[in-house]
Amino acid sequence: MTRIAIVGGTGDLGMGLAARLATHGSVVIGSRDPSRAVDAASRVTTISGSRVEGRTNLEAAAWCEAAILAIPELPSDETLLSLKPSLGGKLVISPIVPMTVREGLFFPSLESGSAAERVASALQTRVASAFHTVPAARLLKVKSTLNYDVLVAAETREVFAEAAALVSSIEGLRPLYAGPLRNSRMLESMTPALLNVGKLNGISHPSIRVV
Amino acid sequence: MTRIAIVGGTGDLGMGLAARLATHGSVVIGSRDPSRAVDAASRVTTISGSRVEGRTNLEAAAWCEAAILAIPELPSDETLLSLKPSLGGKLVISPIVPMTVREGLFFPSLESGSAAERVASALQTRVASAFHTVPAARLLKVKSTLNYDVLVAAETREVFAEAAALVSSIEGLRPLYAGPLRNSRMLESMTPALLNVGKLNGISHPSIRVV
Repeated sequence: MTRIAIVGGTGDLGMGLAARLATHGSVVIGSRDPSRAVDAASRVTTISGSRVEGRTNLEAAAWCEAAILAIPELPSDETLLSLKPSLGGKLVISPIVPMTVREGLFFPSLESGSAAERVASALQTRVASAFHTVPAARLLKVKSTLNYDVLVAAETREVFAEAAALVSSIEGLRPLYAGPLRNSRMLESMTPALLNVGKLNGISHPSIRVV
Repeated sequence: MTRIAIVGGTGDLGMGLAARLATHGSVVIGSRDPSRAVDAASRVTTISGSRVEGRTNLEAAAWCEAAILAIPELPSDETLLSLKPSLGGKLVISPIVPMTVREGLFFPSLESGSAAERVASALQTRVASAFHTVPAARLLKVKSTLNYDVLVAAETREVFAEAAALVSSIEGLRPLYAGPLRNSRMLESMTPALLNVGKLNGISHPSIRVV
């Protein structure tokens, strides 16, 4: 039974992942502000029926065996460096998608590389990039059936397998290996594309299936 | 009944699109080498049961009402400039995906921008970007049922609607508007991502559905 920290987990994606993962494992939501973490954890406990706790990001990181960085923006170097000692040797999953909005549409905001590579470079541990196209709102509705593919970039097949086990523990998510971490750039650019398609075609909470 | 030219249409994607479109419209396959165009057109006629002709790219472009640039690489400026007079005022569809292969995996090869924007800038006509993730091998098997989404970038809703009508004329393809042409960069990067996922997970001829 894995101990999973959702670092920066007070937003919809963090709470949604916590709610889905809590039924099979032990989950702690982290936040810089511990009272916000406790509030989010309490909401997730109500939603999921499984006890989830809230702590500071650093406490959650120190406690966990695997961490998901559910931070909407690329974390600052300071944030990543502060987490590094606690996350060393652990699996870290980056669902981070750096995006900007222009005229109501979404665009990748990194000129080059990917959020996941920057996280890996700062934390110097096993990093997988995943969950970019899983709609947070669907995760939060724990009774709604999921049927999505989750593309996962990771430097090796071994790290992919670790991340895939975590992804698969959420029913209805199929992990697919997308190659080494540098491929995360392609995965991270799918999210703004998908959000635009959703908005422009009236598809709420769009996700993808590989067919 | 639209007259559609498949410029550079002697490859699998060109022949596959020709085979599917020929059942509803009038299709000419173009090539720099007219004898290759005639050979490809003859194969497509056999496959589809509908008469398709082969001509030079310039003849096909001059004849058509709408052109699909089924060229695997970004066409050279010379090629685009040679086509410009024939394609002025017509709808041009770019399925072009500039890619490189490294260690058996695929990556977008443009540092910035997109093939579709370069085509639009060179041709100065209505350009839509589409068909990036439709497997050529499935198109060529005219009896196999398609069930794919086709993301389409186009500068305006009007150009999208024109392109969408062409996409929809192939049964089993659902056109979805993905925003202005600059969004084509995101669409063009989906193809290498999808090819990698197919290769690494044993999914032959992968495509996508937005769900």
